[in-house]
Amino acid sequence: MGPRLVTLDDVRAAAGTLRGITRVTPVERPVGLSRHVGRPLVLKCEQLQRTGSFKARGAYHHLVRLDPVPPAGVVAASAGNHAQGIALAAGRLGMPATIFMPGTAPLPKVEATRAYGAEVRLVGSVFDDADAAAREHADATGAHVVPAFDDPDVVAGQGTVGLELAGQAPEATTFVVSIGGGGLVSGVAAALKALRPGCRVVGVQAEGAASMRAALAAGRPVPLERVDTIADGIAVRRVAELTLAHVQALVDDVVLVSDEEISRALILLLERAKVVVEPAAAAALAAVMTGRAGGEPGDPVGVVLSGGNVDPSLLARLISHGLSAAGRFLRLRVALPDRPGELHRLLGEIAGLGLNVVEVDHHRTGIGLPVDEVEVSLALETRDPGHAGEAVDLLAAAGYRVVPG
Amino acid sequence: MGPRLVTLDDVRAAAGTLRGITRVTPVERPVGLSRHVGRPLVLKCEQLQRTGSFKARGAYHHLVRLDPVPPAGVVAASAGNHAQGIALAAGRLGMPATIFMPGTAPLPKVEATRAYGAEVRLVGSVFDDADAAAREHADATGAHVVPAFDDPDVVAGQGTVGLELAGQAPEATTFVVSIGGGGLVSGVAAALKALRPGCRVVGVQAEGAASMRAALAAGRPVPLERVDTIADGIAVRRVAELTLAHVQALVDDVVLVSDEEISRALILLLERAKVVVEPAAAAALAAVMTGRAGGEPGDPVGVVLSGGNVDPSLLARLISHGLSAAGRFLRLRVALPDRPGELHRLLGEIAGLGLNVVEVDHHRTGIGLPVDEVEVSLALETRDPGHAGEAVDLLAAAGYRVVPG
Repeated sequence: MGPRLVTLDDVRAAAGTLRGITRVTPVERPVGLSRHVGRPLVLKCEQLQRTGSFKARGAYHHLVRLDPVPPAGVVAASAGNHAQGIALAAGRLGMPATIFMPGTAPLPKVEATRAYGAEVRLVGSVFDDADAAAREHADATGAHVVPAFDDPDVVAGQGTVGLELAGQAPEATTFVVSIGGGGLVSGVAAALKALRPGCRVVGVQAEGAASMRAALAAGRPVPLERVDTIADGIAVRRVAELTLAHVQALVDDVVLVSDEEISRALILLLERAKVVVEPAAAAALAAVMTGRAGGEPGDPVGVVLSGGNVDPSLLARLISHGLSAAGRFLRLRVALPDRPGELHRLLGEIAGLGLNVVEVDHHRTGIGLPVDEVEVSLALETRDPGHAGEAVDLLAAAGYRVVPG
Repeated sequence: MGPRLVTLDDVRAAAGTLRGITRVTPVERPVGLSRHVGRPLVLKCEQLQRTGSFKARGAYHHLVRLDPVPPAGVVAASAGNHAQGIALAAGRLGMPATIFMPGTAPLPKVEATRAYGAEVRLVGSVFDDADAAAREHADATGAHVVPAFDDPDVVAGQGTVGLELAGQAPEATTFVVSIGGGGLVSGVAAALKALRPGCRVVGVQAEGAASMRAALAAGRPVPLERVDTIADGIAVRRVAELTLAHVQALVDDVVLVSDEEISRALILLLERAKVVVEPAAAAALAAVMTGRAGGEPGDPVGVVLSGGNVDPSLLARLISHGLSAAGRFLRLRVALPDRPGELHRLLGEIAGLGLNVVEVDHHRTGIGLPVDEVEVSLALETRDPGHAGEAVDLLAAAGYRVVPG
């Protein structure tokens, strides 16, 4: 016999405890983006949740139901959204919270967690170091370890996303939720399947962190040897029996998306819907864009944007990558005679073509480069792929030896 | 005697014609960001408006009131939001629209304008080329030129932003709006000053495009010799008598912000509030962050986020710039002996320091470089300014000659 599943009543109780603590996040129906993906979208904006992700819901509902209140406070290891969720929740309840983070955690996340009143300790360089330290701390002090997903109260708390969505997206027949450990999808499915029995709930994992797919195949949670994805929020090595049981009972399909597909979805949300999400949230839209979310073509789909805490340097890289992929970024190498004025002449040609120079590198040596030639590497911004092709042709016509890449 | 000012009734009439065409955009009250700037913020999210900016409001209200309907359709020159606003409005009304854009207009804006059903013609390379072509087209065909701001119906249409905001932000005592030609601030002030007589309305311009300030000083619209700002949406050389008259009568203050301040506000909105805005919209928040918006310290302030159509390559540059400014990006040059294995050894040291390599450039020649040394330029990602300083010290201690920058 499997674990008891979270019920609609459990989720409703969680909604009661969360009132005034977390917010009922809005939904958006982006017209242009819906047209682009070919079906009406209802985006559930958990990136606008307090702490920037849904995690505060489950953390608070878990903590508020602890009985007795742990005298030594609470502890957890996290480099991300779980840390901020606990910090907010413990702060509201006046519980001391200690969060262990790897020393490599981005400063904004460390600062945000501290700002909510938690004590942050930086330990080692990877999550496992922080996790071990958190367990030691718990053993030594008696502090209560806050689970990230393997707990019915956490699942019920996350389920309030589905409770809200049921009312906010009456037209949607398919709902798409990303899966890391599975806490969010379990709670959301528990609420939606009870309130809207005919609807489909689809889970999405990153190809490089398909822990729920592995568990479904094995019939029990199994650890992945390694996880490798840009979607750090869902990079979980092993799901729980509790969440696996919910997915087996309530989720219609679990599909995979690649990092490239996640990036494209994230950039599309940024450009077309003007919202900032983290890769784990973009994964849900990626499943819709690739058609893997299924359902009747053209049917409205509810997409849970689970969080917005994306590392700014990753975001800058994704945008540049997106521009490249869209043919708006051109890298090429040009061989020039080693004479004064040649670089100036080349840059004149480039300006005349309406290309914007992003980077110039001037090399005096290069593979296959005669002694009287130098090589210039250029990164250029173009209007579109046609413009890029045209530019290469015109530089060649002007007598330059041009090598793309 | 100056021009007749737009009234609350005019704005209410505009709200009637816009029903079902443009949307009542939501407001956001971002808790973390409000704490950061030291006063409660109410953000009016016009970046979520159809076409990604408020411009669709004024354009539609202007077109719907044309009598008779221009048989040759409508025409305008624009590289940005005005183009999309007109395209949407004309499309809804079944009017043919021709938009002249400079050939340098970003492809996404060209595509979006076409997608709304307008005919786009690319002419020349700067706005003035497109503008001249639009006038020629109007003269030759009798098409109606759609004004960007110098028109009471356009002002009344933009004023519906203020009408909505009055109800959505009852707590705000100061409202901040960016100014390009002044259509938005004129309409918003007309609505707010009538509905909330005690409130303050503050206009914001970019330092490099202070056309309204120049007009206020001269007592009449005067053309700026040049405009120079990253905020393309408010880079307007000359305001109109109509908008100047509204500002003189209704706006409490017009303040200036620098491009650097605009960038900081834009990145903060991205990171803390998870919203994507264009620089023209960020300018309004910048005025609050710098304290120039005024009002009682700590008093709630309504900030109009006028649009979200930011060029992705600019966005990537602003994020990188923001990381630099926050000390999370370190550029340095290191001199190495010209021996095999030296670059490998250096990169080992850098990895050991927990620094992420963004760019490496290996130069065989450099100013003041002995013949047996090579120079490596590095761009590194750090956790925080302390980490960057520590890294420079440790590399020096390991025997490297390090030059920051």
